[in-house]
Amino acid sequence: MKVEVYPLRGIPEIEPGMDLARLVVQSSRRSRLTLRNGDVIVVKQKAVSKAEGRLVELRKVTPGKKASALAKELRKDPRLVELILRESVRVVRVGHGVIITETRHGFVCANSGVDQSNVKPGFVALLPLDPDRSASAIRAEVRRLASKEVAVVVSDTFGRPWRNGQTDVAIGSSGMAPLHSYAGKKDPHGYRLRVTEPAVVDEIASAAELATGKLLGIPAAVVRGVEYEPAEVGVRSLVMQRERDLFR
Amino acid sequence: MKVEVYPLRGIPEIEPGMDLARLVVQSSRRSRLTLRNGDVIVVKQKAVSKAEGRLVELRKVTPGKKASALAKELRKDPRLVELILRESVRVVRVGHGVIITETRHGFVCANSGVDQSNVKPGFVALLPLDPDRSASAIRAEVRRLASKEVAVVVSDTFGRPWRNGQTDVAIGSSGMAPLHSYAGKKDPHGYRLRVTEPAVVDEIASAAELATGKLLGIPAAVVRGVEYEPAEVGVRSLVMQRERDLFR
Repeated sequence: MKVEVYPLRGIPEIEPGMDLARLVVQSSRRSRLTLRNGDVIVVKQKAVSKAEGRLVELRKVTPGKKASALAKELRKDPRLVELILRESVRVVRVGHGVIITETRHGFVCANSGVDQSNVKPGFVALLPLDPDRSASAIRAEVRRLASKEVAVVVSDTFGRPWRNGQTDVAIGSSGMAPLHSYAGKKDPHGYRLRVTEPAVVDEIASAAELATGKLLGIPAAVVRGVEYEPAEVGVRSLVMQRERDLFR
Repeated sequence: MKVEVYPLRGIPEIEPGMDLARLVVQSSRRSRLTLRNGDVIVVKQKAVSKAEGRLVELRKVTPGKKASALAKELRKDPRLVELILRESVRVVRVGHGVIITETRHGFVCANSGVDQSNVKPGFVALLPLDPDRSASAIRAEVRRLASKEVAVVVSDTFGRPWRNGQTDVAIGSSGMAPLHSYAGKKDPHGYRLRVTEPAVVDEIASAAELATGKLLGIPAAVVRGVEYEPAEVGVRSLVMQRERDLFR
């Protein structure tokens, strides 16, 4: 089946309290892109964080001792480092101007996802408190406004070990199984697959990034044509259990 | 811009020596999908490995001491472990039935990419010797057959630390810059981006996976509408330099 990714244009700069679902539905209507059952709406983390008021004015942050020392070592703003540490449960690695942390959600990423890009000057954005819940709320509101059963993915841009560059991944989702499990299925040669579980939500986030980019102020996309299993479990289920994780 | 992903159907089981570019062009013609300049053709690793004869019959492999010991520990086939070790330059982690290695190409992945799925019984497929060169060869042949300037990505399915499931990533590419660098560009708020470099080839590989799946015998896809920079550098440039890598 053909997969299509439509960027959602004309969505204004997001301010705290704005209704993202309504903006998505309005944008899709303006672009004559009638939402369909089974569509996946991808909303970028930055837009969700802004709508949920997860913005902090840097000048109001007082860095502690640990943050100040680390900031000096990395030549970073100590107030920013303070926020990075507050948003983390564990520092995983430090180096090359980056603090790799484990966030409260269980994500391992640079700077706890705290980010100054695409935010008004002087402010930084923190990750949503519960991105799966953010996705659920958008999904419920789209259902109400457009009478369509969609899935929602909240995406963010993460680096990864061993490879340069970043890819967009899912930090929250609602309405679809994050993994497509092939366990027990046989390939055309009769070989039984055991561990094949594509992280569909991450691949959808990456596909959306191809159509939206970083500079055009496009905070959302519609991904159409993906066969997914409806499910109520979110991205939190993708966080690898401690005892299975070879890289803790 | 809309991004579209078309699975390429009707491509037969690949045998050593087959001309993948020709099969891709024929499949696109049959499905009335005229290739265009700027299209990205994604070909799965397994198809490339088969076409290049990178298949090994397990019964012809004699495991060494190290492989036999490791196989016992992991309850894996010692001949398979022998191949995994031969294809690696370094064992990164061992556990949960998986050997995470660094391959000769510099990729860190499970089992050196040695895989029994979608291969005839009794055989395993090894990664192509030089997937960037594989991509270049397909690209040149598509240019000759269809008179179109396309980019080519060779994709494989990799797990990742900290998160369950796998995503398709690029192990080879030709004709496009693997990273889209935003370094020095300003966001709509005037903030200068420093480290933002989406790994476009990986996101394209993931997008293709959404349209092809694992069980349908679809070894290739066309991804249309991605804005990329033409370049002659391949995926080898994505391998993180030793001194920058916090996770070695």
